[in-house]
Amino acid sequence: VDVDTSGGLGVLMGREIAEQPDVLDRIVKEQRPAIAALARRIQVARPRFVVFAARGTSDHAATYAKYLVEILLGLPAGLASPSSMTAYGARPDLRDVLFVAVSQSGGSPDLVESIATARACGALTLAVTNAPESPLAGEAELTIDVQAGPELAVAATKSYTAELLCLYLLFDAIRDGDGRHARRLATAADELTGDQVAVAVAGIADRFSGVERLVVTGRGYSYSTALEAALKLMETSYISAQAFSGADLMHGPMAMLQENSAVIAIAADGIGGRAMTPVLHRLAGLGTNLVVVGGSAANAMPLPSGIEEEVSPILEIIPLQMLARQLAIERGYDPDRPRGLLKVTQTW
Amino acid sequence: VDVDTSGGLGVLMGREIAEQPDVLDRIVKEQRPAIAALARRIQVARPRFVVFAARGTSDHAATYAKYLVEILLGLPAGLASPSSMTAYGARPDLRDVLFVAVSQSGGSPDLVESIATARACGALTLAVTNAPESPLAGEAELTIDVQAGPELAVAATKSYTAELLCLYLLFDAIRDGDGRHARRLATAADELTGDQVAVAVAGIADRFSGVERLVVTGRGYSYSTALEAALKLMETSYISAQAFSGADLMHGPMAMLQENSAVIAIAADGIGGRAMTPVLHRLAGLGTNLVVVGGSAANAMPLPSGIEEEVSPILEIIPLQMLARQLAIERGYDPDRPRGLLKVTQTW
Repeated sequence: VDVDTSGGLGVLMGREIAEQPDVLDRIVKEQRPAIAALARRIQVARPRFVVFAARGTSDHAATYAKYLVEILLGLPAGLASPSSMTAYGARPDLRDVLFVAVSQSGGSPDLVESIATARACGALTLAVTNAPESPLAGEAELTIDVQAGPELAVAATKSYTAELLCLYLLFDAIRDGDGRHARRLATAADELTGDQVAVAVAGIADRFSGVERLVVTGRGYSYSTALEAALKLMETSYISAQAFSGADLMHGPMAMLQENSAVIAIAADGIGGRAMTPVLHRLAGLGTNLVVVGGSAANAMPLPSGIEEEVSPILEIIPLQMLARQLAIERGYDPDRPRGLLKVTQTW
Repeated sequence: VDVDTSGGLGVLMGREIAEQPDVLDRIVKEQRPAIAALARRIQVARPRFVVFAARGTSDHAATYAKYLVEILLGLPAGLASPSSMTAYGARPDLRDVLFVAVSQSGGSPDLVESIATARACGALTLAVTNAPESPLAGEAELTIDVQAGPELAVAATKSYTAELLCLYLLFDAIRDGDGRHARRLATAADELTGDQVAVAVAGIADRFSGVERLVVTGRGYSYSTALEAALKLMETSYISAQAFSGADLMHGPMAMLQENSAVIAIAADGIGGRAMTPVLHRLAGLGTNLVVVGGSAANAMPLPSGIEEEVSPILEIIPLQMLARQLAIERGYDPDRPRGLLKVTQTW
């Protein structure tokens, strides 16, 4: 399966998906010392609460990082509603708060204003961005440059996994970790971007070829993967893709699903995957058209083995990026240039 | 339009929607003193962060309350990921945290465990529930009984608006407010549950009768309305309804929308509604099949005038509950008994 014989559709997105092993390798080898130094500055400040601000794909990186903060650092964390500070003019008391803005472009005006306001309100501010010269980085006290390189496809891929990995290395370093769980990621990503997975992705694309609506679900760390996979499918294939945590799916939206409803469930090795068991049981009982990412069942898209759950989202998304690209191409859309979107979204 | 001549479909949900003016009136008149007393206990504790835990409909009440905390109290706030504490065993440092669990039934095991853990980790804990004898209320240090009365339809309606109003009165009292903006709500809800609005709802139901996917969008306080309206449509009509903040819609999902795509935008009077202007412009430019809740344009579902934005979500949802019920009935589904759902969802 040569995924690039696509009449020019999705060439950029295909290339950027394939660059991810190199991007992950470079971050672990070259960026970790700078991130660890920054972690020491944050340790000294002893934040008691972590607030993330982000939009779109980067909001899903922030969702992943929120679990890292809650579980690895034992601190409460939240996703800011940027409009509270921008549109409503809130000036919250942010002493003892680490305020982290995540943005590939660093250019969205509401995030730039949020981080400036957060700093003025007493927070220690950190920008995580692929654009270290951006206005967002300029407003922040601390900056992580995720160094994913230029991303030309509108749908973000390598900048997303780069954000995830940098956030992981940061919070791991804050708990005095040595980043060891990140070391196998580049090799594992290399497996995932290879031909064998491309064949499996093509098979799943066939199963979902006529689908107009689809549910993606995961729990714990993998909830971020569900959110990001749904966004990729919406942006590139224009499928009405909805993400739910496995628990929230049981609290209502399950009613939408019936025989043959298209569902992707993320159930990697670990606690979040095991917590999906009752959800998978219900989905199987309904006779849904179910693909499981992780695991080894007949309908599964296997993931590389021996990966710690806390870094698994960095890998889980890769076959789903490939799937979104493939479905778009099969529908005659160019995933490099989704209709109506620009690379830097201006929201206030 | 007599919404009850439906061959028995949606009788319970219709009755419970219609009870909302009385429920709101009773809360303002009878519950406010108890809520104000509780507010004084919270003031004394001087929390610095507020963390909410909830699932399903109650999670949307928590989303509304998060904006109240950020804007009215000037405190950072977050929605907890319950699985961090339950599945992953996190024991975060929750000193100076007000931890608020919101649950109609008070029976979901993961929320009960979350609030018990939060209390053991040093948080001041509050349960907001329609079941004051529930396990959730039993684990909490403080309890608000929203007193919506028995709710028999599976899709929550009056328990949702009761949760919103109780949370509003609480945070308003914590900032030393006197609840004045809540006083007109019962009368306004009475207008909204009347015949004139039922006619408008029937017209919108006609426009959306064959729709399989739909986007609901709002900003600021009204984002909670978008989330809850989408869930009601999913639960009762099995429509693939997706909610986005107006800003997040612009960061990707807008690509899904084209001419005749079904969209509901909430744009009530105020800052959040004004911030929707560029979103409404894009939606109109695309030629979407757009209904605006609030405002006075030809395609608008008007809302009662003179309502403060900070309480507007308590009203905005009412015509959308009516719409969800109506669409379900027209499709031959019973909104009182969505397939595959129980009133108390057990998630761990």
